[in-house]
Amino acid sequence: MTHIGPDTRGVYIIAVTPFTDEGAIDWQSVDTLVEFYIGKGVSGVTILGMMGEAQKLAEEESAAFARYFIERVAGRVPVVVGVSHAGIDNLVRLAKSVMDCGAGGVMIAPAAGLKTEVQIGDYFAAVFARLGPAVPVCFQDYPLGTGVNISVPTFLDLVDAHQSLVMFKHEDWPGLRKLSQVRRACDGTARRRISILCGNGGLYLPQELSRGADGAMTGFAYPELLVDVCRLFRDGRAEEAEDLFDAHLPLVRHEQQIGVGLAIRKEILRRRGAIRSAAVRAPGPHLDRDDLDELDRLMQRLARRLRGGAGEIAA
Amino acid sequence: MTHIGPDTRGVYIIAVTPFTDEGAIDWQSVDTLVEFYIGKGVSGVTILGMMGEAQKLAEEESAAFARYFIERVAGRVPVVVGVSHAGIDNLVRLAKSVMDCGAGGVMIAPAAGLKTEVQIGDYFAAVFARLGPAVPVCFQDYPLGTGVNISVPTFLDLVDAHQSLVMFKHEDWPGLRKLSQVRRACDGTARRRISILCGNGGLYLPQELSRGADGAMTGFAYPELLVDVCRLFRDGRAEEAEDLFDAHLPLVRHEQQIGVGLAIRKEILRRRGAIRSAAVRAPGPHLDRDDLDELDRLMQRLARRLRGGAGEIAA
Amino acid sequence: MTHIGPDTRGVYIIAVTPFTDEGAIDWQSVDTLVEFYIGKGVSGVTILGMMGEAQKLAEEESAAFARYFIERVAGRVPVVVGVSHAGIDNLVRLAKSVMDCGAGGVMIAPAAGLKTEVQIGDYFAAVFARLGPAVPVCFQDYPLGTGVNISVPTFLDLVDAHQSLVMFKHEDWPGLRKLSQVRRACDGTARRRISILCGNGGLYLPQELSRGADGAMTGFAYPELLVDVCRLFRDGRAEEAEDLFDAHLPLVRHEQQIGVGLAIRKEILRRRGAIRSAAVRAPGPHLDRDDLDELDRLMQRLARRLRGGAGEIAA
Amino acid sequence: MTHIGPDTRGVYIIAVTPFTDEGAIDWQSVDTLVEFYIGKGVSGVTILGMMGEAQKLAEEESAAFARYFIERVAGRVPVVVGVSHAGIDNLVRLAKSVMDCGAGGVMIAPAAGLKTEVQIGDYFAAVFARLGPAVPVCFQDYPLGTGVNISVPTFLDLVDAHQSLVMFKHEDWPGLRKLSQVRRACDGTARRRISILCGNGGLYLPQELSRGADGAMTGFAYPELLVDVCRLFRDGRAEEAEDLFDAHLPLVRHEQQIGVGLAIRKEILRRRGAIRSAAVRAPGPHLDRDDLDELDRLMQRLARRLRGGAGEIAA
Repeated sequence: MTHIGPDTRGVYIIAVTPFTDEGAIDWQSVDTLVEFYIGKGVSGVTILGMMGEAQKLAEEESAAFARYFIERVAGRVPVVVGVSHAGIDNLVRLAKSVMDCGAGGVMIAPAAGLKTEVQIGDYFAAVFARLGPAVPVCFQDYPLGTGVNISVPTFLDLVDAHQSLVMFKHEDWPGLRKLSQVRRACDGTARRRISILCGNGGLYLPQELSRGADGAMTGFAYPELLVDVCRLFRDGRAEEAEDLFDAHLPLVRHEQQIGVGLAIRKEILRRRGAIRSAAVRAPGPHLDRDDLDELDRLMQRLARRLRGGAGEIAA
Repeated sequence: MTHIGPDTRGVYIIAVTPFTDEGAIDWQSVDTLVEFYIGKGVSGVTILGMMGEAQKLAEEESAAFARYFIERVAGRVPVVVGVSHAGIDNLVRLAKSVMDCGAGGVMIAPAAGLKTEVQIGDYFAAVFARLGPAVPVCFQDYPLGTGVNISVPTFLDLVDAHQSLVMFKHEDWPGLRKLSQVRRACDGTARRRISILCGNGGLYLPQELSRGADGAMTGFAYPELLVDVCRLFRDGRAEEAEDLFDAHLPLVRHEQQIGVGLAIRKEILRRRGAIRSAAVRAPGPHLDRDDLDELDRLMQRLARRLRGGAGEIAA
Repeated sequence: MTHIGPDTRGVYIIAVTPFTDEGAIDWQSVDTLVEFYIGKGVSGVTILGMMGEAQKLAEEESAAFARYFIERVAGRVPVVVGVSHAGIDNLVRLAKSVMDCGAGGVMIAPAAGLKTEVQIGDYFAAVFARLGPAVPVCFQDYPLGTGVNISVPTFLDLVDAHQSLVMFKHEDWPGLRKLSQVRRACDGTARRRISILCGNGGLYLPQELSRGADGAMTGFAYPELLVDVCRLFRDGRAEEAEDLFDAHLPLVRHEQQIGVGLAIRKEILRRRGAIRSAAVRAPGPHLDRDDLDELDRLMQRLARRLRGGAGEIAA
Repeated sequence: MTHIGPDTRGVYIIAVTPFTDEGAIDWQSVDTLVEFYIGKGVSGVTILGMMGEAQKLAEEESAAFARYFIERVAGRVPVVVGVSHAGIDNLVRLAKSVMDCGAGGVMIAPAAGLKTEVQIGDYFAAVFARLGPAVPVCFQDYPLGTGVNISVPTFLDLVDAHQSLVMFKHEDWPGLRKLSQVRRACDGTARRRISILCGNGGLYLPQELSRGADGAMTGFAYPELLVDVCRLFRDGRAEEAEDLFDAHLPLVRHEQQIGVGLAIRKEILRRRGAIRSAAVRAPGPHLDRDDLDELDRLMQRLARRLRGGAGEIAA
């Protein structure tokens, strides 16, 4: 199965886009990044999301990057491609291009500037009409990034109207109740099932899994943590899952700083050998000496904790 | 003189991008549109602004459109090209491409998401460093569209730091006092002169000219009105200028409805023979029966008023 | 009839709150202001709106001001009181207090921070439950001020759920189509009728009346213009109404500058003898020399035009 | 020392405002809450902050609550009072009233709607002029709540201009670099020292202390954690401080959900005996069954971890 669908589970890691220090796409790092992610056991990869600096790629760069990335993954896991764009033509053009290359689905956020829920509905009606029924779609619900808010009933209207909407990327914040509501409404009985994967850097992942999420779609630079938490949770070992999660929470929280978090994430991936340069395209954040020292300490603390050396709590 | 500079005056009309009903660029209408604008006496044209639906063009479409447009204008007036983009690389690439084709300058708005005035300063430092000193730049100050606010002192810092910043597109709203402050600070004595052209659909044009603006840079579908007002004003006939302006004010105001105003503007241009279709790319506004009837009446009222038939005021 | 209801028509002028130069409520100017408004033929008055600087009054000042104002009006026209507040208790307390004093209804905008239309619905359910069925409510739809957007279907749900919602203050912008949709849906046949009065400074009043609005609820400093336009329009003299409107449009537009517009409005009211001081409470806008000179010219131009001296249009 | 000053350190807990289930101020719970906070070792208390639902109190309720709270604290620690308000008169009136009652200072955020940094400067110039030099002021830098962004140079201008500005409540997010910059600029050598206390629920407290913060000003429902972390850190036991912090991080993160976080915080305080009811005034969040179960688990996990029973990390 190379396409996402209503039963998709596990971890879809949000991939960074690796650049050289000069800002070109670093194709060699794409190779290592793909192997890094797959080696950590992810169930899928999502490229060209907001964390993938999609808005700073040229249109043909996006298409070329997606094509190359999908080729390197070579069908081992599905690849979802973010195709959100200010223009519907552009969105559809990229979506068709990447599906032709073997993408497993596309991720779409409501366009910035949509103000009412009727406008959101109209927008997606136009998008789905243009995409046709064969392109599996993940709806990205990320108001902090888009400025667009959707209520549960309006989202359910979208589910009812568009069969190819198969996944909900949950990253409204705070949004735990919304997740519960969508889960109950789309449970396969009350209404057809959809997959729910959670974003927001994974900051509430144990709570989200308890509330019925099917996994995570986020870019934490230790994908194995996300994978293990989801696996332990599915095996009924929820407390162990959360213990493991909590050990990583300081870094989860550290990466979840909007803006600079991307530079932190790329720097960790660089240190872990996944990519060669932590460069972010301009305008973008850069780490200074304070930031790098701080990151050193946090990574060392994590390593120590995973070795069992932390956990002594001062009285 | 084909480049904009600190002494640029008059009307730089913001051009629409003509599409066929199917949404492709309508090259034939580009030809007629260019002649329409130049025939109305504009001093320059600005393409690929927000009203030009730049964000819905593919990157290569933008470059091709700019090249074609500049060729058709053929040096009769300067062509300014909007190059704002989420990525600085993309911005610079388009800017250099259009300057190579003969553009007269580029227009840049601060990128959405800049939060403090230090960030605005840093952003433009990076942009100007990449553009080099030979590309004349118009700063577009449009907080309602970008969400980015700049104070006068911070703008003056930009003027002091970057010699190729030669024009201020004033469309903060309300912003008449800001215009006065920039004018006095950049009058050629207190500080080097810069050109100030006004946007916001021209809604306050007489007031802006009185406060020292050098002209208008906006897309009103009756460019001759803007041209005549600027000319009369420069000839010392301010009251006549404002009488003429006031006659058109109902339509100026009608076009100045963010969103639907673009559809209104294109429909008027279509009726006036400047373009063949009023199509707007999706997602975009469309006029319904009510809107079209309303526009009929407003255009008829303008025609009657210009013939002298209105002006009788009910007691 | 002292209460607003579904058939309310005409002009409900939004009153300023007059202050002394020292910032205290100027009770003597309240007296003159009431007579000024009523003398101009308004059908009602709305106090403590955003233009009434309600958010800068102490809670007891608001109650005292409303009580005094209502007493001075003495039943000649209904007085609507803006009661929007961050807390529902506060809102209800003021609403009950002013209804006890003889107010004709209350105006409520959705609280800032409501993000989805379900949240808007829940908010008003709570508000209406607390107000009870006897308080006539005007819903203020002003997204530019509140940041809250409501679609027509959600608004209609409110109409269906709450019988005491009798009036829609239309000031979404642009919002002409929304007005048409609400009008058709609440025409007394498809659904119970509600009154629709228009805000936004009256900038589109002729268009709004054509689309079925029942009048205006705005604060233009020449209330007689609003009154005459509505009267002429109801008498079937729409072109004359619009001629008269257009003569005032330069000033309508000038007052409709968010922020500084309040200072302009108070200054015109002061010049017209309605209040003694144009003072605005801090933080608030103040007119400088440029602003005052500009206003002189615009008021002189209006006077000349009304005398018939303008209208000659330069060739 | 009952006033805040440039050398203030430690934990200033942000107090909730306790209500009865019916929504009245629960004075008896104020008594227990005061003892709870002081018993946990806080260095000060901040009341009527955003988490104190200040905007839903009547003006006289605010003054009465502050007076009562300060009386119960009885000089044991300083009490800072949030006095932010849309009107400067209101702000000053409350500030003077609470200082007369023995408050240790006031906290002020820039008013919503300030757009440029010049406007921010002008606003605080007006505020400080009215307050006079004797009222110690904490500047609350919370863009996520106010929508107002200030750069470091503009903040330093405020420090230079207003001697009574003695404290910076740091809760820009992400904002670690800003904290470092303010700290270095206001270190007592480069410029006069100011106190820096950190908000944002304490989510980055160890990092903030490392970067030079003097403590925390936030409302986490386990104030002893904040107190112990600050104490251990000052004693040079930074790793232990962070171990302790990390044990609580799951709950720190859980409370730091804007909106619903307040209901969670009040519920924890209720369970810990600090207040009798977790009621939040309308419009406000309420916990449902899912939320309460989730909170049970998180609190149990914390208790277990503090007893040493967690920390085993699954392989």
